[in-house]
Amino acid sequence: MNDMSTLKNLEVGYDVPALPGMDESEIQTPCLILDLDALERNIKKMGDYAKAHGMRHRVHGKMHKSVDVALLQEKLGGAVGVCCQKVSEAEVFARGGIKDVLVSNQVRDPAKIDRLARLPKLGARTIVCVDDIDNVADLSAAAVKHGTTIECFIEMDVGAGRCGVIGAEKVLEIAKAIDAAENLKFTGIQAYQGAMQHMDSYEDRKAKIDTAVAMVQEAIDLLEPAGLKPELVSGGGTGSYYFESNSSVFNELQCGSYAFMDADYGRILDKDGNRIDQGEWENALFILTSVMSHAKADKAIVDAGLKAQSVDSGLPFIFGRDDVEYVKCSDEHGVVADPDGVLKVNDKLKLVPGHCDPTCNVHDWYVGVRDGKVETLWPVSARGKAY
Amino acid sequence: MNDMSTLKNLEVGYDVPALPGMDESEIQTPCLILDLDALERNIKKMGDYAKAHGMRHRVHGKMHKSVDVALLQEKLGGAVGVCCQKVSEAEVFARGGIKDVLVSNQVRDPAKIDRLARLPKLGARTIVCVDDIDNVADLSAAAVKHGTTIECFIEMDVGAGRCGVIGAEKVLEIAKAIDAAENLKFTGIQAYQGAMQHMDSYEDRKAKIDTAVAMVQEAIDLLEPAGLKPELVSGGGTGSYYFESNSSVFNELQCGSYAFMDADYGRILDKDGNRIDQGEWENALFILTSVMSHAKADKAIVDAGLKAQSVDSGLPFIFGRDDVEYVKCSDEHGVVADPDGVLKVNDKLKLVPGHCDPTCNVHDWYVGVRDGKVETLWPVSARGKAY
Repeated sequence: MNDMSTLKNLEVGYDVPALPGMDESEIQTPCLILDLDALERNIKKMGDYAKAHGMRHRVHGKMHKSVDVALLQEKLGGAVGVCCQKVSEAEVFARGGIKDVLVSNQVRDPAKIDRLARLPKLGARTIVCVDDIDNVADLSAAAVKHGTTIECFIEMDVGAGRCGVIGAEKVLEIAKAIDAAENLKFTGIQAYQGAMQHMDSYEDRKAKIDTAVAMVQEAIDLLEPAGLKPELVSGGGTGSYYFESNSSVFNELQCGSYAFMDADYGRILDKDGNRIDQGEWENALFILTSVMSHAKADKAIVDAGLKAQSVDSGLPFIFGRDDVEYVKCSDEHGVVADPDGVLKVNDKLKLVPGHCDPTCNVHDWYVGVRDGKVETLWPVSARGKAY
Repeated sequence: MNDMSTLKNLEVGYDVPALPGMDESEIQTPCLILDLDALERNIKKMGDYAKAHGMRHRVHGKMHKSVDVALLQEKLGGAVGVCCQKVSEAEVFARGGIKDVLVSNQVRDPAKIDRLARLPKLGARTIVCVDDIDNVADLSAAAVKHGTTIECFIEMDVGAGRCGVIGAEKVLEIAKAIDAAENLKFTGIQAYQGAMQHMDSYEDRKAKIDTAVAMVQEAIDLLEPAGLKPELVSGGGTGSYYFESNSSVFNELQCGSYAFMDADYGRILDKDGNRIDQGEWENALFILTSVMSHAKADKAIVDAGLKAQSVDSGLPFIFGRDDVEYVKCSDEHGVVADPDGVLKVNDKLKLVPGHCDPTCNVHDWYVGVRDGKVETLWPVSARGKAY
């Protein structure tokens, strides 16, 4: 979207929050802004880490839902492709030029399976997760119908308590079925421990991944003698990637939030006991908001409420300020405690959202900012692609 | 959007969740569905109530963000127009044919004020709220520049603790300034008590509105002798409209959620101690979701998570079922406790969202359903219009 000609018919304040070339102070709020310098540093850092540890990095596109960010992760961070959670998201990424796409989720609806089977025709290697032997025949039939190959990961529940099988025997049983099915390929194991990523303590997180690694190792020990050695063992998030990378079991990471950061992830602690947003990763994503009322001396009302963010993981914090605090959120209003009355109407604040993924999903645009200027606008390409 | 020709290039499962004429069972999930019969009954009922009580009903468009729903509220419910919270939303409603639009919020950013001043050129009576005398000159200058008239409500904080002035003297002071300003008109008072709408007890809610009514009466008692009798006194929501209607002070209601209902509103009690979703209003809005994994015997995983709803006011409940319960929500997954194992993969459930407003704001479409068939698709016209 750097080509300004494609933006010329868009109205600022209606279609878009800003246009490239504008001063940062002219951006219409509330909207998402990206600190492009911080974003690029985060992407390079994780890319360098993955390369140094011999890991593939399949970035989690469900976090940002942006083709532009995914392409930047390939370019600057050596990402091998993306994972995402929905077939409609996968279509966006494949159409946008991503060549290796994993739907890191179960696909069971017949219409969705049919769409999935057509995904390779968009030029993307297509991988999906399976946790039920009853899914295998449906996936195979759709791939045969469209003359494509669907690769399959067996999804193991290694502690997240959502989708996924428990037990190595189940993995072997489904892997055999996939291996025997026409137009399917057994490619590996999906083992993402989503429930531990946000535990504050490094040691607590390590203990959870140790358990996950042991469960995956047990499955591999059954698969290999059956001639079904997994090509890929995929998992790991921003709160755990160093454990998977040093496990000798995983060979693919799926980190997402490291690129943007958020308040909930930021407060987890690294091995030295420091918050991960104080050194390991930088805040690159902000909700830019403006003061629109200060009728009471000790509180400012800002224009970013529940329709500008998700508060499922807590309220946002105000970046770089300890004199004011975002204390309450309703549909279109945020209440900012301003005990010393330092804020004025139209002052702008940068909020670090509690949880980046569902926050990005309510916005249509990322405004990329560098040196106080709007450099680029990126659409949240897969926003609302929930099917 | 009933004209199917406008939908013919849209792909089901990518652009839209369904097309008119489809069987309800073919709808792609997760998505919002509207029970059109229930919706129409809710709209008629509130319209009849307002008419019987001599109240104008300015429906709150920020709840549904849909031109089609607003037009239906005018047609079936006698609504006089809409209120909404953002200038960009107001533009959507004005362009969609709504002739009386109130931005029930403060507008302070210069670019937004300029857009507001152009709104009358779209054919809509334009009203905005003011809570700061410093705003008056800016509004006036923009209206003069564009040769339009902006009508103004003074926003009073009658207990919500967000925007709005406290005290009758402040109201009089700002009303005089508006009355003296070129191209502005002092039209009335905005007095919405947003903080009490969700209090469970009818008597507790009544006490809060009694206080609000007294505050507004005090302001009117100062305004009238100054020749500034308000033409409109506007407020009231789904949890309070009967109090404002019987106050002899308010003459305009601003209800929104009554049309769709949600879990958080549904549990407040009417004067007889019954939940308001058990007789007063019907659930018309649902998130349709599908089971996509049942790898564990006692839990089903459904495809509606945080990107299909807002959980700020609690988790959704499953409509019409007491054998299964939605117990946990992550980005793209919902965990449904299914102790008796009654659910199967691809079974569909109707979720009543915790909070309708921010839930509607994550979706692009309403699928209107009647007698088991998809009758219409309505865009969430002002979705993402946060500026």
